[in-house]
Amino acid sequence: VGKPKIAITMGEPAGVGPELLLKAVEEVKEFCTPVIVGSASFLFERAEREGRKLDLSVTEEERLNEFGGCIIDVCKLGRIDPGKATEESARAALSFIDKAVELACKARVDAVVTSPVCKHTIDRLGVKFLGHTDYIAERLNVKDYRMVFFTQRVAVALTTVHVPLRNVPSLITEERVFVTIKMLHAALSRIHKRECKIAVSGLNPHAGEEGLFGNEEERIKDAIKRAKDEEMNVEGPFPPDTLFHILEKEGFDAAVCMYHDQALMPVKLLFFDEAVNLTLGLPFVRTSPAHGVAFDIAGKGVASPRSLLNAIRCAVSLL
Amino acid sequence: VGKPKIAITMGEPAGVGPELLLKAVEEVKEFCTPVIVGSASFLFERAEREGRKLDLSVTEEERLNEFGGCIIDVCKLGRIDPGKATEESARAALSFIDKAVELACKARVDAVVTSPVCKHTIDRLGVKFLGHTDYIAERLNVKDYRMVFFTQRVAVALTTVHVPLRNVPSLITEERVFVTIKMLHAALSRIHKRECKIAVSGLNPHAGEEGLFGNEEERIKDAIKRAKDEEMNVEGPFPPDTLFHILEKEGFDAAVCMYHDQALMPVKLLFFDEAVNLTLGLPFVRTSPAHGVAFDIAGKGVASPRSLLNAIRCAVSLL
Repeated sequence: VGKPKIAITMGEPAGVGPELLLKAVEEVKEFCTPVIVGSASFLFERAEREGRKLDLSVTEEERLNEFGGCIIDVCKLGRIDPGKATEESARAALSFIDKAVELACKARVDAVVTSPVCKHTIDRLGVKFLGHTDYIAERLNVKDYRMVFFTQRVAVALTTVHVPLRNVPSLITEERVFVTIKMLHAALSRIHKRECKIAVSGLNPHAGEEGLFGNEEERIKDAIKRAKDEEMNVEGPFPPDTLFHILEKEGFDAAVCMYHDQALMPVKLLFFDEAVNLTLGLPFVRTSPAHGVAFDIAGKGVASPRSLLNAIRCAVSLL
Repeated sequence: VGKPKIAITMGEPAGVGPELLLKAVEEVKEFCTPVIVGSASFLFERAEREGRKLDLSVTEEERLNEFGGCIIDVCKLGRIDPGKATEESARAALSFIDKAVELACKARVDAVVTSPVCKHTIDRLGVKFLGHTDYIAERLNVKDYRMVFFTQRVAVALTTVHVPLRNVPSLITEERVFVTIKMLHAALSRIHKRECKIAVSGLNPHAGEEGLFGNEEERIKDAIKRAKDEEMNVEGPFPPDTLFHILEKEGFDAAVCMYHDQALMPVKLLFFDEAVNLTLGLPFVRTSPAHGVAFDIAGKGVASPRSLLNAIRCAVSLL
């Protein structure tokens, strides 16, 4: 079996994760070997109730290679009502992530795709969880990682993520911006298999207006110069409020943003439905759909697997 | 003549200002008395060349009341090529603003609508000019003013505007946020003639995530509480990255944003073509189209007067 092995976590059992998995799994077998990390009995029961085929063998991690698709059965689950996460379901969701990370670290799988979990319910377990990105990086003691939102049209990398806005300006150093550009450039080159063009945002209004509204743009310029010296096709800093117009108009493949909302405001307005979240800097490839557990529509069969399918395809293209 | 008198500056002569004026002036006579502040000879020449009617009397400011529309002739101009601002044209554009402000302060007109000018060419004259808003407020020594972007669907007020991002968090005080809410609420009530619903943004990612990413949201909450105590219909703080989804979904009339790009990124992506820029806190009503001089299309007759028409209508509705 020469296809890449992709661990896909089942996510929060009460969310849309399980039904999206059932909708996507047959299709992805065409280009990868899905290794579902979750609750086997829960998935088979759900598949039967929905009249869906679930053609996967439940197996041990030592025997993954023997199947064109399988389930690593992490735990049994009691009754779970769609839309209602419980301590049990949240704990299970967390154990799926832990197991998938373990499989990737042991190189039993080639990449990890995570389905959405419920942060608030995990919080109630006393576990600090800001999102898969930070959680996995912390578990692996990785300091230099970056969050990226990826669509077929454009990728957006974040230089800082879950920090107070008041701490952002001092975090915008030449080194940190340069590393963001470099990681993004490397990932894009692998995905698109050609040279890619990256736009870098400023931090301040009008990108500082020649130093009138802040000087962090000098450090951003130094990072851009360093990237250019290493033969990367990168331009900026551009005024944040027109960055996404410039991306479109001038045919950039990607943007480097300075902080959470500078990236997330336009990403959520422009292409949230199709976006994939990927983490750069981990020892393995990790992607996920950009949406959440969607408790309001969980169990109704209407959730779209598009973002999950994109996440799995994106993971394969990064290998 | 009972219609409101609206001073409309001609803007940068080399920009789209003059042609938009010529396109809009007949239509606006239906609901206001336009008082064009600019160069009469320049406008009549341009009107003749474009085969447009310009039915306005050139007059002195003391005699404005005698006409259904007129021109206050500030200066003659040498040859101006569309798209090419000069020191002379920039100086003229500035003198149009000064004259319009003077007319408003003397109560000879009821409101001021400004056409776009070229900031960079004005800079070369040695005049500090961040935009009409700051320029006019500074001339009048007004400290507490607010920039608002207004469309038929939604209005967006900015708590801070042209300051470095690193200075924003300490400027987010209860008082400043409250004044923004209060000014916006008063303006909207006048425009819509009904109670309006306002959403307030947070400052930090996820609106601070319960204090995990910053605590400025506590001060924003205090401002919201104070506004509620004064019977305003206001909610928040909402996570910045989904604010504009919430506006739409929950039927808010307006948003209060904390800083320049938090407002301008979504405004420019969602409705820049139709937006009107208005300044609250001045001793008179002042609006403008949200677009700039558009040198790339100036003189070609293709620029749309929609934003200018909206700006004039908005000024009238605020009176």
